[in-house]
Amino acid sequence: MEFPNREEIQEAAVRIAPYINRTPVLTSEYFNHRFNTSLFFKCENFQKVGAFKSRGAVNAVFSLPDEEAKRGVATHSSGNHAQALARAAALRNVPAYIVMPETAPKVKVNAVKGYGGKITFCKPTLQAREETLRQIVEETGAVEIHPYDNLTVIVGQATAAKELIEEYPDLDLILCPVGGGGFLSGTSLSAHFFSPKTKVIACEPAGADDAYRSFYSGEIVPSIEPKTIADGLLTSLGKFTFPIIREFVTDILRVEEEEIIEAMHLIFERMKIVIEPSSAVPLGALLANKLDVTGKKVGIMISGGNVDLNHLPF
Amino acid sequence: MEFPNREEIQEAAVRIAPYINRTPVLTSEYFNHRFNTSLFFKCENFQKVGAFKSRGAVNAVFSLPDEEAKRGVATHSSGNHAQALARAAALRNVPAYIVMPETAPKVKVNAVKGYGGKITFCKPTLQAREETLRQIVEETGAVEIHPYDNLTVIVGQATAAKELIEEYPDLDLILCPVGGGGFLSGTSLSAHFFSPKTKVIACEPAGADDAYRSFYSGEIVPSIEPKTIADGLLTSLGKFTFPIIREFVTDILRVEEEEIIEAMHLIFERMKIVIEPSSAVPLGALLANKLDVTGKKVGIMISGGNVDLNHLPF
Repeated sequence: MEFPNREEIQEAAVRIAPYINRTPVLTSEYFNHRFNTSLFFKCENFQKVGAFKSRGAVNAVFSLPDEEAKRGVATHSSGNHAQALARAAALRNVPAYIVMPETAPKVKVNAVKGYGGKITFCKPTLQAREETLRQIVEETGAVEIHPYDNLTVIVGQATAAKELIEEYPDLDLILCPVGGGGFLSGTSLSAHFFSPKTKVIACEPAGADDAYRSFYSGEIVPSIEPKTIADGLLTSLGKFTFPIIREFVTDILRVEEEEIIEAMHLIFERMKIVIEPSSAVPLGALLANKLDVTGKKVGIMISGGNVDLNHLPF
Repeated sequence: MEFPNREEIQEAAVRIAPYINRTPVLTSEYFNHRFNTSLFFKCENFQKVGAFKSRGAVNAVFSLPDEEAKRGVATHSSGNHAQALARAAALRNVPAYIVMPETAPKVKVNAVKGYGGKITFCKPTLQAREETLRQIVEETGAVEIHPYDNLTVIVGQATAAKELIEEYPDLDLILCPVGGGGFLSGTSLSAHFFSPKTKVIACEPAGADDAYRSFYSGEIVPSIEPKTIADGLLTSLGKFTFPIIREFVTDILRVEEEEIIEAMHLIFERMKIVIEPSSAVPLGALLANKLDVTGKKVGIMISGGNVDLNHLPF
């Protein structure tokens, strides 16, 4: 496959700028002292819709030619991508068709409705979701926008690390969580183009380590019955994200649940920010001594802040 | 009494700048839309030690002449002021004597120890705390730094609103929580000097409404058996804070627990920041329709983020 290039990421940054937040980069004396390092947290929990997903969704919707865009966009998702896509479509004033499992939490259904998304409910199986989506695309002519295995989405996600690198051009490492690989692919592309000396290391829950196994076996290992609190990292790598990750990512570290939860708690307590469990995996890797960061400058990609506050794991 | 003047606040801002954070001002589309207004949250939860108290403590410690400072500083506190004073004293390399009730949570004791504070435990009564502090001051010659009823402390707290006003010079209102009145006094002084058209309105838990009753009766009503989740707002006004508040504050609004908790939850959920319950009282006043802010520009003073994450009220 042909990888996205530098110009596509630069164009995406310009395209999405009016519709997304340039999120802050936070630091923590406590963590720097504890790990004898310098950590720079790129805080996509402060992004629109509370997650980096807004970047890819906006880039995908605003990259479409008018003719295609006016028929609308479609996806199946019960998570952040559904909201992000509905919002992006509303901004371009085109319809968004969202397929959701009938078991989706009401708060997520309402959020999509709040952005004007047209929801179709289906049985809570992957097969039902894909089949329902196929029918909707056929009927409406809408363009399917996959949550991560879509190059325009990946290029959109890349803009987060691009911003981080602009502010901190001499990072030794960037740590990024991995689920389906959209955020990680984009992050590794931006490091490659804008800061080639910066290594990108992925962090994955040990209970959902399909990306690790794919990375080291050389073929996509599907995510089957993943078990982790990091509910944004349950999906498998895809035909676009896998080769990008193989090419531009240095290593994948596996992190146990205990360290993910401890990291999440520490980030709430010490940094005073609300993050989702997926965002805590990189710091969890440091807590578990999976990586020596002594004296290094390390970017940490915080993916989002959409977490059920009534059921925190601490 | 003679009120602090503009120059004292300006000097304090310069004095404390090397030792504190210039905290960010955050906005929320969700709240702006919901209340048809423009809210600007001054986020002292991102301050050193997690609360605005760092400002007053640093100003008090660094205002002392060398001769006095070297004997150390002292206070009785089990809260943020104890940590803030211990930290400020450590920065100036002088001792901090902290009297704490023997019932103080271990995490707070350890935090004070972590900054090198010298702790003396006493019975958990106000009388025991004051008597123990008096003895320590007598023995050591340390200077007592009251948590709020101290003009140098008040002037330090004033720097938070000064920063907010520098960034947003045309605010119609500033809403600020009130307990002992240190943060509120400082805020109202800064509004008076740096943005005289901006009205300051205090927000107080209805279950601890001694400031409200003091304000409207004209004499200090002590806080007796206050009942509120806002554990930073349990104390009574003092001989310095009361006259400042009477002079420079426009009104005090009383907010019920339900709205305080709802506001706290909403700030976590929508703004992705961790705040302590006291910080939620101003937004609670808006949720309860205590104030019409339609079309206005409104500053909201977020006092801190030190909250027991294992016992959130939602």
